[in-house]
Amino acid sequence: MEDSERKVVVVGQVARDLVLSIDDLPEEGGSATVRERREMLGGKGANQGVACRQLGARVELVGVVGDDAAGREVLEQAADDGIGVAGVVRRAGARTALLLDLVGPPGARRLVEDVDDQVLLSPDDVEACRESLRSADAVLVQLQQPGAAVAAALDACGEDALVVADGAPADEETRRRVLSRADVVRADSAELESLVGWEPDGAAEVVRAAQELLGQGPRVVALSVAGGRGDVVAWPGGHVVLPLLGEKAVDPTGGGDSFVAALAMALLAGETPELAAWWAAVAASDVVRRPGGRPELEADRLRTEARRAYEEAAATTG
Amino acid sequence: MEDSERKVVVVGQVARDLVLSIDDLPEEGGSATVRERREMLGGKGANQGVACRQLGARVELVGVVGDDAAGREVLEQAADDGIGVAGVVRRAGARTALLLDLVGPPGARRLVEDVDDQVLLSPDDVEACRESLRSADAVLVQLQQPGAAVAAALDACGEDALVVADGAPADEETRRRVLSRADVVRADSAELESLVGWEPDGAAEVVRAAQELLGQGPRVVALSVAGGRGDVVAWPGGHVVLPLLGEKAVDPTGGGDSFVAALAMALLAGETPELAAWWAAVAASDVVRRPGGRPELEADRLRTEARRAYEEAAATTG
Repeated sequence: MEDSERKVVVVGQVARDLVLSIDDLPEEGGSATVRERREMLGGKGANQGVACRQLGARVELVGVVGDDAAGREVLEQAADDGIGVAGVVRRAGARTALLLDLVGPPGARRLVEDVDDQVLLSPDDVEACRESLRSADAVLVQLQQPGAAVAAALDACGEDALVVADGAPADEETRRRVLSRADVVRADSAELESLVGWEPDGAAEVVRAAQELLGQGPRVVALSVAGGRGDVVAWPGGHVVLPLLGEKAVDPTGGGDSFVAALAMALLAGETPELAAWWAAVAASDVVRRPGGRPELEADRLRTEARRAYEEAAATTG
Repeated sequence: MEDSERKVVVVGQVARDLVLSIDDLPEEGGSATVRERREMLGGKGANQGVACRQLGARVELVGVVGDDAAGREVLEQAADDGIGVAGVVRRAGARTALLLDLVGPPGARRLVEDVDDQVLLSPDDVEACRESLRSADAVLVQLQQPGAAVAAALDACGEDALVVADGAPADEETRRRVLSRADVVRADSAELESLVGWEPDGAAEVVRAAQELLGQGPRVVALSVAGGRGDVVAWPGGHVVLPLLGEKAVDPTGGGDSFVAALAMALLAGETPELAAWWAAVAASDVVRRPGGRPELEADRLRTEARRAYEEAAATTG
């Protein structure tokens, strides 16, 4: 099967990203001038969907926007990006989530988020997409959504689908469901404790935490090490500690979304978990070079760079 | 003539105001959650126009927006507000100005402004509105616009029109033109030095500066005293030092715009400069009670409260 025929459904946030690059944040009472403004489709679900599409998948989004002008615009942009939006609800009376990303000097990023409860997924929203979920080759579920919606999504996945869960489970019940159903689980350093149940400190403890999780069901576990010290990807019988690649991180927004999407797409393409981990690391390093969370991935280049990074790492450690 | 028949043309900025109320600004790398989001027609020109409309005038705006969705939306809102927008250019390829107003704990406001040069007025943009300007009872000109556009607006005003200039002149030539043509000049404390040519310190010096300006042409001069110590309004033979009225200033954005609009409307209605000054002070105190710069004035209430404040002040000093 060609990559281009793989169907990926992403269950998560669809938002408007407003990215303002400024030299410095104004003082209280003061003002600053914007150097660059970008306004675009964003949110973790849309970012992951766009990345999967750029890597060759047919993508369907499941999410919620408002019935405002912003909701119409982000859906138009998703359609322009070749993303299916039949599963995105336009909720009457709700306002589309707004993610303001204030990017100062390199690395100094501040997020200001306006996410109305009404634009979170309900179990009914997910149920309405049951057919689409059942026929997906991969389903990416974001655990920022309410536990009942996450449960509905996990229940609807086909038996052979690659199920990827990203984030901190909302409660113990959701955590249990996720670990028993997901093939891949991913958490960044802020989400780590909710997923593993204790607070791993440093790469060695994160590896141990990943191995614990592998014993509970998933076949690939990807966890960030706190303090920007890279990511651990583990599978039964092995693991790799990925450094943060690239030198010019301008804005970390969206790095984790491209990481998850590339990891899923590599596994779907039949790559080993170790090589898939390098796809993820290279994809994350690509998006953080620009302000905003929107990925601009090229499948061929990603494959080549991931292979090179993998071989360099093997040569160093070997 | 009824107030409702007065025609006011406002020459200035038309923008999109995005007002986000947050508890605290996030740290670098962190995030904050929005308590309240308002997104609306804004910019100094639109704010003054809306205020004049609320005080009974027929209002025409002269300004520039982009040909983007935001430009369409702000013009729709202006039309809904009963403001004439035939004089607002939708510039091809330009993006509508965005004024982000981050409102923290009461008083802690930060502005982040994205104003493309392409959405500033050109002399041609103003020339196209010559007929509208010529027939106006009052013209409010914002000196943030380029000097050549300001000159075109001043030249186009009818002989009997009340001409109000607000802000810091762009250069000496503009300053000279403004002082020889405007009936009313207004500058806040940051704009004061450009208008008067030296830096007055404290209310007594601001009164002296206002009297100097009166000698150069205007018949009413309104200047803010630095450090939030109120406003001076002066006319030949008299002046008043206005305190900042009201106790609950949530966001100073737009206070100056309502001040100017109310001052102009009171003078147009035939009030004395002294009573007009109190209209202005009451109008400014009203808008700063809410986040964002949008006025919500009621003509009758403003008239009553201004009269009361005036009489209280007279009783105190008398």
